[in-house]
Amino acid sequence: MTLRLEGRPVTEAIDRETRSILASLGMGAPPPLLVSVHRGVDSPFRFYLKRQAKAAQALGIGFRDDTLAPGNGTDELAARLRSLDRDPSVHGVIVEHPLPAPFDFFRALEELRPEKDIDGVGARNLGRLLAQRPLHVPAVARAALAIARHYRLPLEGQPTAVVGRSPTVGLPLAVLLASRPPGGNASVRLLHSQSRDLVEGLAGTRTIFSCAGRPGLLDRRLVPEGAHVVDVGLSSVPDPGRPGGARAVGDADPDSLDGWAASLTPVPGGVGPVTVAELMANTARAWQVQLKGTGDA
Amino acid sequence: MTLRLEGRPVTEAIDRETRSILASLGMGAPPPLLVSVHRGVDSPFRFYLKRQAKAAQALGIGFRDDTLAPGNGTDELAARLRSLDRDPSVHGVIVEHPLPAPFDFFRALEELRPEKDIDGVGARNLGRLLAQRPLHVPAVARAALAIARHYRLPLEGQPTAVVGRSPTVGLPLAVLLASRPPGGNASVRLLHSQSRDLVEGLAGTRTIFSCAGRPGLLDRRLVPEGAHVVDVGLSSVPDPGRPGGARAVGDADPDSLDGWAASLTPVPGGVGPVTVAELMANTARAWQVQLKGTGDA
Repeated sequence: MTLRLEGRPVTEAIDRETRSILASLGMGAPPPLLVSVHRGVDSPFRFYLKRQAKAAQALGIGFRDDTLAPGNGTDELAARLRSLDRDPSVHGVIVEHPLPAPFDFFRALEELRPEKDIDGVGARNLGRLLAQRPLHVPAVARAALAIARHYRLPLEGQPTAVVGRSPTVGLPLAVLLASRPPGGNASVRLLHSQSRDLVEGLAGTRTIFSCAGRPGLLDRRLVPEGAHVVDVGLSSVPDPGRPGGARAVGDADPDSLDGWAASLTPVPGGVGPVTVAELMANTARAWQVQLKGTGDA
Repeated sequence: MTLRLEGRPVTEAIDRETRSILASLGMGAPPPLLVSVHRGVDSPFRFYLKRQAKAAQALGIGFRDDTLAPGNGTDELAARLRSLDRDPSVHGVIVEHPLPAPFDFFRALEELRPEKDIDGVGARNLGRLLAQRPLHVPAVARAALAIARHYRLPLEGQPTAVVGRSPTVGLPLAVLLASRPPGGNASVRLLHSQSRDLVEGLAGTRTIFSCAGRPGLLDRRLVPEGAHVVDVGLSSVPDPGRPGGARAVGDADPDSLDGWAASLTPVPGGVGPVTVAELMANTARAWQVQLKGTGDA
């Protein structure tokens, strides 16, 4: 019997904290405003967009989605971010990622001060994470860890795998999991597309975080029996029966893992909504810091 | 027969590149100047200081060592770094690390622009490493990788261990090793003091980088037979017979590993001198960029 680790209870706990931050500054404070910048094209990012708007509305956070024009590149994105950085009514900015060439994601993100980079994916926030002085931690990494904590998956000192080494997901998640508490304090095996020891590296791991973006990668040939799987992967596969003609899938093969893995987060409904909740929590924190002018920046 | 992987041939190759950078700007250019800031007390850092001065002199790099006063803390260090950052005659700055409390190393380092942080240990350089857009990579991590490359140790796709998770050594080395070429492209197991799977995690690894700072940690009970060991650890142990009453030791137990490991870098004479050579190479690059006003910063 493989437990299905739903994101919803984790989301509810994070939202409670967000509401208490939002209530802390009382009446009269300008409401927080979050801006989500994206290309407006079909990409796995769009699965988050509607959820971002809905979550923001439910929490009383202002939300605006900002579509780049077709043909826009790094310069336009950088100019957009520079303008959002200077706008005092904007407290947090999310940028679609990964962004394909010719976009230079990290160069554009340099225009955003770390406090407003509420997704924690700019180089300055990544540096603070590696330096063990985090400000905003990449929301998806926070979400994956929050799920593991909520369901008390084995982490502390335990062999733990991260599959995938993207600079905005796999690498920061590996660093967060290996960090001292409140990090995961886990023994981390970082595996990727070039790893020749996928089977041996996963053998003996108790909890596996998969961020490869490769549907069906994790099946019972790779996952040790009784391991827990947090499925961070997000891919879009064609599905004519769905609105938009596509659906979101993770890295895990749920049929293969059923009755084999100890637990598995579903896609959709697992890491995705928790990531959105973490984005909202980071926005609330950013708003608090920017309004109070306090906090370590 | 355990091969002894001397740092010297690696150092010579790096120094050749440094000399060619230094020759590139021709006559008339102001010479590069490197400043090493330290507490002037007994710490493992002092093993590097004399080597820094000697290596700089041999290469024609100006060198100044800047001793903090007794009782100085983060504010004094930050002020010192701010002044060095503004001084156009200074091209590179090294700061002793780790620095114990009350020093806040990373806060002080914020005063140094990434180009002058030639040890690559400030949060902004760490962030660029994690973002896969490196400027200066921590010199000790570069040195460990350079040794592995020079002696063609197994890395590419291979199970590789990093023992230790300090923010300026173990963590950045793990990221560098897991990164695509020119990174190590290795499958990385990041182990540390809280890992309960030290033996299982090291089993099957081909190359082990130890950065724990724990003398004698790596012996044949932990290291798999035939593995290669790059000893990045540096500790000071009392030795009344030596000048200064202490000597430098690594993490490996050379007697236990002799005839068991395939190869081992000595301490002293392994990673240490190569780290110094990498510091000089980074200084030359920083000087070139700052003089030409070119380069991606």
